[in-house]
Amino acid sequence: METKQTDIKLKSPVRCIVKLGGAAITCKNEFEKINEANLITVSSQLREAMIVDDFKEQQVLDYNSFVVIHGAGSFGHFQASKSGVHRGGLNQPLVKAGFVATRISVTSLNLEIVRALAREGIPSVAMSPFSCGWSTRERNIASADVSTVVEALDSGFVPVLHGDAVLDESLGCTILSGDVIISHLAAHLKPQFVVFLTDVFGVYDRPPAEPNAVLLREIAVREDGSWSVVNPTFEDSDKQVEISVASHDTTGGMLTKISEAAMIAKLGIDVYIVKAATEHSLTALSGKLRDEIPEDWLGTVIRYVS
Amino acid sequence: METKQTDIKLKSPVRCIVKLGGAAITCKNEFEKINEANLITVSSQLREAMIVDDFKEQQVLDYNSFVVIHGAGSFGHFQASKSGVHRGGLNQPLVKAGFVATRISVTSLNLEIVRALAREGIPSVAMSPFSCGWSTRERNIASADVSTVVEALDSGFVPVLHGDAVLDESLGCTILSGDVIISHLAAHLKPQFVVFLTDVFGVYDRPPAEPNAVLLREIAVREDGSWSVVNPTFEDSDKQVEISVASHDTTGGMLTKISEAAMIAKLGIDVYIVKAATEHSLTALSGKLRDEIPEDWLGTVIRYVS
Repeated sequence: METKQTDIKLKSPVRCIVKLGGAAITCKNEFEKINEANLITVSSQLREAMIVDDFKEQQVLDYNSFVVIHGAGSFGHFQASKSGVHRGGLNQPLVKAGFVATRISVTSLNLEIVRALAREGIPSVAMSPFSCGWSTRERNIASADVSTVVEALDSGFVPVLHGDAVLDESLGCTILSGDVIISHLAAHLKPQFVVFLTDVFGVYDRPPAEPNAVLLREIAVREDGSWSVVNPTFEDSDKQVEISVASHDTTGGMLTKISEAAMIAKLGIDVYIVKAATEHSLTALSGKLRDEIPEDWLGTVIRYVS
Repeated sequence: METKQTDIKLKSPVRCIVKLGGAAITCKNEFEKINEANLITVSSQLREAMIVDDFKEQQVLDYNSFVVIHGAGSFGHFQASKSGVHRGGLNQPLVKAGFVATRISVTSLNLEIVRALAREGIPSVAMSPFSCGWSTRERNIASADVSTVVEALDSGFVPVLHGDAVLDESLGCTILSGDVIISHLAAHLKPQFVVFLTDVFGVYDRPPAEPNAVLLREIAVREDGSWSVVNPTFEDSDKQVEISVASHDTTGGMLTKISEAAMIAKLGIDVYIVKAATEHSLTALSGKLRDEIPEDWLGTVIRYVS
């Protein structure tokens, strides 16, 4: 994997990588529709979270410590799935046209997010993975030059990346998801914590809409990558097993989410999955959860235990 | 200069690098206003120019042989000049905000151009120079990884780049003009010809709006980079000297334009400067001028003579 490891010498450490989930910032069921209210609140919360007190007790914006990645939501998905961009085959006119249409859709969302952040005074800069030269091989990252992201951070900007259609060495093309980008950046930039902003309160033991769905408040990840729910403690010990072995990810993508978050947590980076545009997301973004998780905080913390 | 020369092994040669001048595709005096009619015609002409007859006498779109670069026109210039982005100084809040605003403005124009080209069936992909990691040192290109452009070309896409705000190693930041990008790409991609689409018929001996302005139809560039007008032939021999020595570029940017075009022509690449969205621009884009320049063709040809 070509990642230019040697170039990664950040002037100051990255504080947070934040994922704006597609479901949180767009209206899922309306074609290319932004959830304006959420986006405004999310941008405002990000600004608040970036303010740090300096030694003179003046408030300064600690801009250079955040990276934003967003999903596609109701942008891109339609164009990508209809043409099968994720399966590759650029020699097929439909796939090639789908690639172009997908990129137009996701970059137009990206532009609006950069604009919303800039309106809050955040020095956001679009960094589209395809343009940055990110590419895959069999859908795994093959080339991702993190140095351009580092240079933007070092210059005091907040890079804004997104899930994108990219070239794939074996398939021709595919979709690189925002979550894969986060894992990659987390491994190389070593942020203090990672926040996933989503449209539900966190990770549940079953689809959140189901009755009796239980919010998993804290998940512990061990050295070998295995994980277990430590809060709530299930009286029924079979329950824990049930969550761990639930196959084929029938629980609304829960297992995939936990597995990806666990890979990040294994690096010693706290991961918070929280509902966007709530008091809980602001708490998570501010970094306060690293010291203590308040009783009334709603969300899922996934962290490494040695 | 970090250009990854070794990576430049194109599957097929680049046919044309085309510059969509800011004045041709935007309304110069209206803030962030696209010249829709021109953009539609330009896109349609580009599509027509990309069609080549294959050996079966079927028309096929020879997509992978064009690179598009556009200027900013009424996008970006206001934001950039008001904040002084070209002078650098990212530690000043106004410059940093101007950098962000400039990029938002030029990337929104870029998105609309990519969209207009895609509507014509051209597989256009946005490649923003800042995102691509292009940077400067004292305003000269310091790093420009052409390999991402090459990969896009090799996959059959038409990369669309633009003048952009970029990081500068000594100044902090500056503006990288579309014309500088073209010179750089021309030197590395070695296209068959370069077309500058503008809002006048070509290069004149004085500002085109002045009475008696004469269109310079053909300019010959010699090995040492010097150039002379070979058509029309001025009876008054002092006239030739007058054009060559006109100092401080008082002739509406003519000398700068010729000098930049001459640098490209010196590489053996024909340069055509022509009015956008006219029959003359279509002739230039089609590559027909390489064989013969029709009597009724209006524009300026700048080419190397050995």
